[in-house]
Amino acid sequence: MITVALAKGALLKDSVTRFAKAGLDFSAVLEPSNRLLMVPSVCGRAKALLVRNGDVPVYVAYGQAHLGIVGFDVLSEKQMQVANLVDLGFGGCRMSVAVKSTSGYKSAVELPPHCRVASKFTNCARRFFEGIDLPVELVHLTGSVELGPLTGIAEAIVDLVATGRTLRENGLVEIDQLFYSTARLIAHPLSLRLDNGKLQQIVDTIQSQSDSSCL
Amino acid sequence: MITVALAKGALLKDSVTRFAKAGLDFSAVLEPSNRLLMVPSVCGRAKALLVRNGDVPVYVAYGQAHLGIVGFDVLSEKQMQVANLVDLGFGGCRMSVAVKSTSGYKSAVELPPHCRVASKFTNCARRFFEGIDLPVELVHLTGSVELGPLTGIAEAIVDLVATGRTLRENGLVEIDQLFYSTARLIAHPLSLRLDNGKLQQIVDTIQSQSDSSCL
Repeated sequence: MITVALAKGALLKDSVTRFAKAGLDFSAVLEPSNRLLMVPSVCGRAKALLVRNGDVPVYVAYGQAHLGIVGFDVLSEKQMQVANLVDLGFGGCRMSVAVKSTSGYKSAVELPPHCRVASKFTNCARRFFEGIDLPVELVHLTGSVELGPLTGIAEAIVDLVATGRTLRENGLVEIDQLFYSTARLIAHPLSLRLDNGKLQQIVDTIQSQSDSSCL
Repeated sequence: MITVALAKGALLKDSVTRFAKAGLDFSAVLEPSNRLLMVPSVCGRAKALLVRNGDVPVYVAYGQAHLGIVGFDVLSEKQMQVANLVDLGFGGCRMSVAVKSTSGYKSAVELPPHCRVASKFTNCARRFFEGIDLPVELVHLTGSVELGPLTGIAEAIVDLVATGRTLRENGLVEIDQLFYSTARLIAHPLSLRLDNGKLQQIVDTIQSQSDSSCL
């Protein structure tokens, strides 16, 4: 039986649509009354694991799910051993550096060395600041990162920005972009190698309906 | 101005009650319509930061909050430099090892060496399994850890258990307990050392109304 890992939250509806086009109907997970975390497809030949964003690449890397859909932001932060197969185009947002709009900084290289940077994505932030040779102290927060500069715990933040509304409401402004993130179809590499064609067929169908590919 | 860090979620109501008894009224954070993450007290001499559980010790360790209330589970996992002052008694739950009820394991030492253990609290789990000299592979998950044994990603989990309902619903059973967790009043150590009496007065009032103390 094919197992796919789906992320709860913003990506769920589009993820279900993509798998439906490949013949796997998991629309039951979208029912408001659904409490199940393991949901069989209507055809009965697959099941979906409904997990948190950050856990999708974990289930796929350990082979407990053959396929999964998750944001590039999570893939980049987690660095798990998964095959990043298709850029699905939806769920677009920027991973950005932001500061108080009154701070005067115009780009990340202007930040003072050894300043504090708060983020949920400290691995992404570390690589970015290493890349521009700016030593910073990273403060790992798990939510409401926009509070960082307001409370003074950090001079800058690295966070996902979709519309920019949260930043504006908190008097923050983007000064640099790490990358643009979209939803990706990922697979367990060994399952793909040992596949008898069923997985590849799903991947091919989803890929053919997407504008661009990571391959 | 005194700043306190309060955890969103299950501990919030009782936390507000304790600070109210010490003269700091943050009941505005309990209003369903409240969207503010920084809320002044009614008296105007303090403000509350409304943050996620795991971020309370971070804000206190960095001195952006002088005091905070957070579960011992989070303190134990995060190991930040904060003063653990008062056991407030509420928010009680067990940090437990659980397995499939059909597995036959009766205690953690019976688990096979190098088995996989899934948890949100991998630091707590690591210390526990090191303490019983059982090498295990830890799988960090961010939610729905009870799925671990059902999907096969792990043979055991380490997770918080309050009523045990989630475990029962998923066919799991507790076989060992790491510790019992309750809400704690914590403080920024340096703020407490440099305090002119105001912080200590709040701590003393809250402590006098609690059954037991960590000191």
